Amino acid sequence: MITPTAEPVKRAVVLLSGGVDSSTCLAIARDQGYHCLALSFDYGQRAVSELAAARRVAEALKVREHRVIRLDIGALGGSALTDSSLAVPEEETSGIPITYVPARNTIFLSYGLALAEVAEAQALFIGVNALDYSGYPDCRPEFIRAFEAMANLATRAAVEGRALAIETPLIALRKAEILTIGTALGLDYGLTVSCYQADEQGRACGRCDSCRFRRKGFIDAGLDDPTRYQEQGSA
Amino acid sequence: MITPTAEPVKRAVVLLSGGVDSSTCLAIARDQGYHCLALSFDYGQRAVSELAAARRVAEALKVREHRVIRLDIGALGGSALTDSSLAVPEEETSGIPITYVPARNTIFLSYGLALAEVAEAQALFIGVNALDYSGYPDCRPEFIRAFEAMANLATRAAVEGRALAIETPLIALRKAEILTIGTALGLDYGLTVSCYQADEQGRACGRCDSCRFRRKGFIDAGLDDPTRYQEQGSA
Repeated sequence: MITPTAEPVKRAVVLLSGGVDSSTCLAIARDQGYHCLALSFDYGQRAVSELAAARRVAEALKVREHRVIRLDIGALGGSALTDSSLAVPEEETSGIPITYVPARNTIFLSYGLALAEVAEAQALFIGVNALDYSGYPDCRPEFIRAFEAMANLATRAAVEGRALAIETPLIALRKAEILTIGTALGLDYGLTVSCYQADEQGRACGRCDSCRFRRKGFIDAGLDDPTRYQEQGSA
Repeated sequence: MITPTAEPVKRAVVLLSGGVDSSTCLAIARDQGYHCLALSFDYGQRAVSELAAARRVAEALKVREHRVIRLDIGALGGSALTDSSLAVPEEETSGIPITYVPARNTIFLSYGLALAEVAEAQALFIGVNALDYSGYPDCRPEFIRAFEAMANLATRAAVEGRALAIETPLIALRKAEILTIGTALGLDYGLTVSCYQADEQGRACGRCDSCRFRRKGFIDAGLDDPTRYQEQGSA
């Protein structure tokens, strides 16, 4: 009796914050045929409601598994996202934003690398974007390429010849393009939270950098904005 | 009035497990004139007594600060050091040891990178050794160089031109040479713990890989072995 040869399973670890970019990244990975393992971090950030959003998105996109790793990154200090004594800026800023967390993507990707090895994944997806977040050093293509080179020397899998690709499908896209792609893939952005200071119900402030990029994206894309704001008239 | 120009302060983050290698690494960094910030990890490893050793060594070597970051790395699974269902091997093994933790040094160095940026450090020391631990992919010089290249693209400090050096003073040394150097620098190895399964008093099993390397090192170096073993006659 002849059994048909099964396609080899493609596995990916997808970093999922519950915001627009990482949720779209997960939708893209799934659309590319990957069996997805979503990985979120609880790092004492103000936007705890992001984690609830990550859980909603992971469930809606039917991931194989969703892991949440608790990080002690807040103890490192030095960022308005983890240090409650620094105010989140509501004006546009130039250069590297105060919301920058030291080495955050390096730490996130390192855990993703570890999980990718354990899960025998061929790809690690991260929704970095070099256009809208040009101020963050660890969102640049040259950083991603350097991390990938390091990752392929770091693990038992690498030594044994199983390469890991760091996939950044959003890196050169504008917010409006990201929203258009995700919508075409059936992602409900009403499940996501982008705001740095969303309230407990996941309603956005409408004023921070992240809210402004998101709102402008929906307008530019000509899509209805499903975001729930704390004050509906704040725009 | 002319004030003498002060030497610029050299700052280093030193990863400190409380074992022979990392403790020697700290002694070397200090001897090179660095103001040292020691960084240890509590990652649910069996050898919790290592952390007590790290505290003793940090105090004895008068570091500026000693931070302990709690890691959720055990949740990743896949290693005898964090998974209590796997036995620690007591025989010599070939290839990558079962005690290998996925991407461990990548994760440790990533936190070190974050702390180095916050502390404005010029160097990050790690006591990896490519000879005694040849089975670990993330102890090889090519891995360290790749991490350094990535680190110098990852941070605000890097973007602003302040480079970080990943220093591995032990990478090409044999255990006996490491012990000889540390002893010359005044390090009391009785403070350190190397054993993968030390008891609560920090006494070593004398049988695991780490104990065997350590014991052989003292013999090869012609130094008295100050290690306290659980059964004094087990050798």
